[in-house]
Amino acid sequence: MGLQIVRFEKGNKEQWGVVRDKQILVLKDSYRTLADFLEEGVEKARELLAQGSGETVLLTEITLLSPVTKPARIVCQGANYSSHRSEAGLEASRPPFNMIFSKADSSLSGAYSEIVRPSHVKLLDYEIELGLVIGTEITNPVQVTDENIHDYVAGLVIFNDVSARDVQLSQGQWLKGKSYRTFGPTGPFLYILDKEDTPLIHDLELKLWVNDELRQSANTSQLIFKPAETLTELSEIMDLSKGDLVITGTTGGVALNLTPEVLGKITNPTVPDQEKYNTLLESQLKSEKYLKEGDVVRLQIRSTDGSIDLGEQENKVVSSKVTIS
Amino acid sequence: MGLQIVRFEKGNKEQWGVVRDKQILVLKDSYRTLADFLEEGVEKARELLAQGSGETVLLTEITLLSPVTKPARIVCQGANYSSHRSEAGLEASRPPFNMIFSKADSSLSGAYSEIVRPSHVKLLDYEIELGLVIGTEITNPVQVTDENIHDYVAGLVIFNDVSARDVQLSQGQWLKGKSYRTFGPTGPFLYILDKEDTPLIHDLELKLWVNDELRQSANTSQLIFKPAETLTELSEIMDLSKGDLVITGTTGGVALNLTPEVLGKITNPTVPDQEKYNTLLESQLKSEKYLKEGDVVRLQIRSTDGSIDLGEQENKVVSSKVTIS
Repeated sequence: MGLQIVRFEKGNKEQWGVVRDKQILVLKDSYRTLADFLEEGVEKARELLAQGSGETVLLTEITLLSPVTKPARIVCQGANYSSHRSEAGLEASRPPFNMIFSKADSSLSGAYSEIVRPSHVKLLDYEIELGLVIGTEITNPVQVTDENIHDYVAGLVIFNDVSARDVQLSQGQWLKGKSYRTFGPTGPFLYILDKEDTPLIHDLELKLWVNDELRQSANTSQLIFKPAETLTELSEIMDLSKGDLVITGTTGGVALNLTPEVLGKITNPTVPDQEKYNTLLESQLKSEKYLKEGDVVRLQIRSTDGSIDLGEQENKVVSSKVTIS
Repeated sequence: MGLQIVRFEKGNKEQWGVVRDKQILVLKDSYRTLADFLEEGVEKARELLAQGSGETVLLTEITLLSPVTKPARIVCQGANYSSHRSEAGLEASRPPFNMIFSKADSSLSGAYSEIVRPSHVKLLDYEIELGLVIGTEITNPVQVTDENIHDYVAGLVIFNDVSARDVQLSQGQWLKGKSYRTFGPTGPFLYILDKEDTPLIHDLELKLWVNDELRQSANTSQLIFKPAETLTELSEIMDLSKGDLVITGTTGGVALNLTPEVLGKITNPTVPDQEKYNTLLESQLKSEKYLKEGDVVRLQIRSTDGSIDLGEQENKVVSSKVTIS
């Protein structure tokens, strides 16, 4: 049985806890980073749960923080479910490569925090994704398989890969449109994975609602490039550290809906940039699905059999009041 | 007068030093990260230089390390010189946006280290770039100007943004093709910038040779999006920390040479991925300029008046012998 870990703030103090019956058992020690927690805290959390006594708090008494701490690498898979590939104007079938990009770690925010829309962003979108929390130092090519993945992945989180489609898709490279502060609600729980649980990575149900309307619903069995092969490939390219995050891509049902024709036009280097931007906006602004002020996005990930539950995330959309100092 | 700082290894020990007359004055204390060095080491280096005594080593007795340490964010500008925009098949003029992507920090390597070509990479390219080392915590939008840039940029480095063009350009997002280990030779010097020096950021000469043939030659006055406006925009999007690296894009003269027609084809979503890859390869493999085993890449950045000198970098290209553990 895995552990549901939370990181939270109470009275300006950052603490860690483990969830039992909707209560949080508070760990005595604090940990500055997720890597420190993974090093020393997991065993403590297990002991605390076995013991069952000590300080408890309710979810309502605290402010949840992202269990993934900064600095962290956030490595992202793109277009990794067929249903999302289609709505993005791509061929639905498995492409010859695993699309990889990154997201700034300052996008990380808590599971109940607000999503702040920058004032110039017109196409604000949501993306539910399963996040893999790296549990070891990867500094060389390794062969990750379904049998040994527990040596590399410490736990799982819900991640909302919030995206400014107008910035993302009119500028070619996606980092900027994906990275604004608050664009990465994470949690509520870091689900520490037991070795016996690992087959269930392939049978997690993802669900996302906007204002209680179900928009995204999928199962991780539909992932095109699977976690093990993705980690194997990443290890051939770059280092990953304990506490880093790999997000596995989103499924169909986002606000974005591109025909191959529109996608063709906005990626055509001979079309002037302003025309690309206008074409994108024109094709998308008629959609009612993009996020607006006051919208509430709710996300859940759990295994079909109910034994793994990553909790529920709820983010309200607000508009930015930027002040430049 | 700025300082030329080096980070190096001698007898398995990591140390920092300051350069004087081609000798390195060795700092007594070591610093685990560039952030720690910037915090405590700069003053010590200044004192040591004033004092002029103490342990010295020669460049030939040590192994240079990247002065930028891991973990670090590497934020990259793309297509930021007109001459490079043209050879990449783009309009030469200033586009409406500053193209931003990132590179994995495990690409960082020393100024005299080898560039390892992964065995599957066929189009290995070089890119000389001016690197800005961030000197403070940026956690909110700030207005960076030529007058206050010294508050945000601690120093400058030479950076070779080594790129696997076949991976970069056939997969849409650039992170993967830019991130292989050894794809980021940095240094030799971290040039700690004096406030009086800052106008010279706009008058640095960049030169890159392959096997003593001059391939790239430009001046930072030609940068399209300037350092101050770029840092202002980045601050509106993401956090940057002391010791992070912003690389400002490369100039004309790389091996890559795309016509608008080829670029159009390889970015067209209706062209099958395999055909895109073949088109790219066919158009590029006839070029003699791509890096091959044994090639030596040499890079220099200095101000026209000679007062700022970031040193000289020299990387030899070797082929990878990958072993997957």
